[in-house]
Amino acid sequence: MTARSYSPRDGTAIGVVEQTPLEETLAIVDRAVAAAATIADAAPIERRAWLDALADAVVSHGDELVRLADAETALGVPRLTAELARMADQLRFYGRVAEDGGYLGVTIDEATATTPRLVRLRGPLGPVAVFGSSNFPFGFGVLGNDTASALASGCPVMAKAHPAHVLTSLRLAEIARVALAEAGAPDGTHAVVVGRQAGVDLVSADGTRAVGFTGSQAGGLALWRIANERSEVIPVYAEMGTVNPIVLTEAGVAGIDQIARGFVESFTLGSGQFCTKPGLLFAPAGHGVARAVGDALEQAAPQPTMLTEAIAASVATGLDEMIAAGADVVARVAGPGVGWSADAAVLSAPIDALTPDSRLLEECFGAVAVVVEYSDATELEAGLHALHGSLAGAVFGSGEGDPDVARAVKLLANQVGRVSVGDWPTGVAWTWAQHHGGPWPATSDPRSTSVGAAALDRFVRPVTYQSVPDAALPLAARRAAASDNPWRIPRRIDGELVLP
Amino acid sequence: MTARSYSPRDGTAIGVVEQTPLEETLAIVDRAVAAAATIADAAPIERRAWLDALADAVVSHGDELVRLADAETALGVPRLTAELARMADQLRFYGRVAEDGGYLGVTIDEATATTPRLVRLRGPLGPVAVFGSSNFPFGFGVLGNDTASALASGCPVMAKAHPAHVLTSLRLAEIARVALAEAGAPDGTHAVVVGRQAGVDLVSADGTRAVGFTGSQAGGLALWRIANERSEVIPVYAEMGTVNPIVLTEAGVAGIDQIARGFVESFTLGSGQFCTKPGLLFAPAGHGVARAVGDALEQAAPQPTMLTEAIAASVATGLDEMIAAGADVVARVAGPGVGWSADAAVLSAPIDALTPDSRLLEECFGAVAVVVEYSDATELEAGLHALHGSLAGAVFGSGEGDPDVARAVKLLANQVGRVSVGDWPTGVAWTWAQHHGGPWPATSDPRSTSVGAAALDRFVRPVTYQSVPDAALPLAARRAAASDNPWRIPRRIDGELVLP
Repeated sequence: MTARSYSPRDGTAIGVVEQTPLEETLAIVDRAVAAAATIADAAPIERRAWLDALADAVVSHGDELVRLADAETALGVPRLTAELARMADQLRFYGRVAEDGGYLGVTIDEATATTPRLVRLRGPLGPVAVFGSSNFPFGFGVLGNDTASALASGCPVMAKAHPAHVLTSLRLAEIARVALAEAGAPDGTHAVVVGRQAGVDLVSADGTRAVGFTGSQAGGLALWRIANERSEVIPVYAEMGTVNPIVLTEAGVAGIDQIARGFVESFTLGSGQFCTKPGLLFAPAGHGVARAVGDALEQAAPQPTMLTEAIAASVATGLDEMIAAGADVVARVAGPGVGWSADAAVLSAPIDALTPDSRLLEECFGAVAVVVEYSDATELEAGLHALHGSLAGAVFGSGEGDPDVARAVKLLANQVGRVSVGDWPTGVAWTWAQHHGGPWPATSDPRSTSVGAAALDRFVRPVTYQSVPDAALPLAARRAAASDNPWRIPRRIDGELVLP
Repeated sequence: MTARSYSPRDGTAIGVVEQTPLEETLAIVDRAVAAAATIADAAPIERRAWLDALADAVVSHGDELVRLADAETALGVPRLTAELARMADQLRFYGRVAEDGGYLGVTIDEATATTPRLVRLRGPLGPVAVFGSSNFPFGFGVLGNDTASALASGCPVMAKAHPAHVLTSLRLAEIARVALAEAGAPDGTHAVVVGRQAGVDLVSADGTRAVGFTGSQAGGLALWRIANERSEVIPVYAEMGTVNPIVLTEAGVAGIDQIARGFVESFTLGSGQFCTKPGLLFAPAGHGVARAVGDALEQAAPQPTMLTEAIAASVATGLDEMIAAGADVVARVAGPGVGWSADAAVLSAPIDALTPDSRLLEECFGAVAVVVEYSDATELEAGLHALHGSLAGAVFGSGEGDPDVARAVKLLANQVGRVSVGDWPTGVAWTWAQHHGGPWPATSDPRSTSVGAAALDRFVRPVTYQSVPDAALPLAARRAAASDNPWRIPRRIDGELVLP
């Protein structure tokens, strides 16, 4: 069985690779299992060095990788050049988070007259299967956020190459193999498989201890179900596409021209292929907001080329379904008509079309957005409440004096993982405070994030050591005079946080 | 439909209560949903006051509660008096953890040239359904660890009365209703339902946002499956019974008499009805350890009275199944023969009987334990590796000089949530560093704990606020000069932990 890579710009095949047979996938899992203890025992500073080596390696192969990814994804050289730099920065960032050691959660209660000595810290789960996304071959690919945070937390990674950029995935994995070996990481630290069945085999394999996924709800929930059928169920952290609601306040309408242009720019970015694409705008009624957004789309006149033939087809189907669900077309711009072409569109819909199982509540992965008008605060609140969980949402108002902003922020915070004011949701910074998650079905675990420092927390599990002598404790938790806090990490001792 | 309460000592019915019909369960959920925002907005110090009021109230009704619980459970007045004090202490402890505020995880990244200002903190999920256990009417009952940690984290609680102590559950809920109202908590902060179907209705209700469960694997996994079938899936934190392996090292055999007595005391405590009961002892071959444990059981001569008729029957069935799975009876002490009576027993089994689906790998909830002999370190490692995940495990050696202790600690840490050295696992302290959880199937989420400060983490979800003005942020995360850190909680600012 083979997998083909295509050029989205003209639909021609540009490469053929073998899918990974079951026995090879199982051998990859076995190598990861064999490497797991060594990686778990490596000090965070060592793992940081491995991640830095990966970052250096992808940067040094930057031109080649960008060219290859552009051929496979048509995302364009400027965007991919920036995304490659992002991938390298992310790898370095998660290494710094590992070295900080806060993620270990070291907590020590000394013995009292009635309680034994208890020492709690988190350790890596073991081999993690990573399913990167179609739309970010670098940022969320085989060396993207899930891989970097899993390695940082001490877990080997077995990644599945995405069919939208299988050649890029394989090249990244080969660069990683060489760089990790040179940096001293054990064989089995990172590997890649090809093909849908190989992905299923990874999730089903006994040795796999967790799954990270970025992509569609259909794909993420399918893996979640497979994991839940295992004899030993493992956590699946699926970050999935959502509608990402935007609220425009009454006072915010004053800035409608700029907001309409910004909205179009955000929802057509990367041909609308962002999991944080703003897909639904709540606008105050009676100001012609839908028309203004439609005009802005026609003026921008994007020419969406999609990542795969299936995604291009799903935009056409999605538009049909949304119109059948009660939406009207305000503006529709035809795609380039060659390769994986799709239309861009602005729709409008009455707010009472947002019924519980309406198609309008689901993502349309492409340059498509819906404007819904609300007549008062009660109607806005009911409209937001009708939505499913989303990754992100945003409020656009008239500034600090706008009384509706705080209220909309609070409403959105109930529905999403990230709320912004005056910023479009499509940019996702990788910093300590980032949360890229959200309530079901934005993610399969609403407490988890796939971007930001807390991404490591998904791949570790606490163990408490009771009355265990110092020499038998993991290094990070030792307190004997000669070995107290060897990694200089923050700890909570007898209930008090103590900085290193 | 009614539910009956029985005296385990003689099997007579001592009370009849109505099961909660669907419409009443849904009304309870509605009241919890209505209360959720008020509870979420209450400062941690307020919620601490509510928990302190609950602690005071149960202590002031202590004699009545202990008498009632003893009539329903036959656990004895001394044990139940201690457990009631524990319940009160737990309620106060989780209030202190809430006030500390570390669980909010406040993280602030100030804006840079390339990144926006990001503020991340955790907020409560909303109404939590709590299923307490049969064996701890106070510690893990309707006001036990799950309830206390959920309330501390800002979530209303809807508890199901356990059929083994339904009268005690209802009385606790009534005491809580009065105490919470007097302390100023909103109506809907805590309620109780009766009956198996009412429990299913709670998990299925739209307004329910999470589930805490303590009990059998069959019960916990049934609720987990129901939650996974919801249109909006919610997290289920099920803490379930396991075998809890003990390792006796070669050198540890020198202390066999004391260890055999301690083992019997631990596995017969509360008639063996502890989720942390040590059910499987790995002993070095050739020292007659099984015989020594059998002698200790015969000398102790426990007279197990079980919590329910079904539990008593399951001990008899479990013994038959374990014998059919290759175990031999070393010692068997008949129960009192009246009421919910069960035998106590020590079995022995060859280590190669621990095959993947052997009954010996599962809990027998009662005063039953199995001794397995290992001939060398390799056989011990393989035996431990064959086990399913457990809540706890322990190593007994000859002291700090015993080279096998550290090795066994490391092996057990891969399989359990808590490892102790020289302590039996049955005691579970409620402190900052406790972890009462473990790999599947000890829990449905191996990262979660139902005891200790981290128990709050189960019921909160992070939200990141991007470029949100201070006045629109949740109070806990504000930084303006007049309102900086109003709750005096630890924060991470620009990557650095900062103490209040």
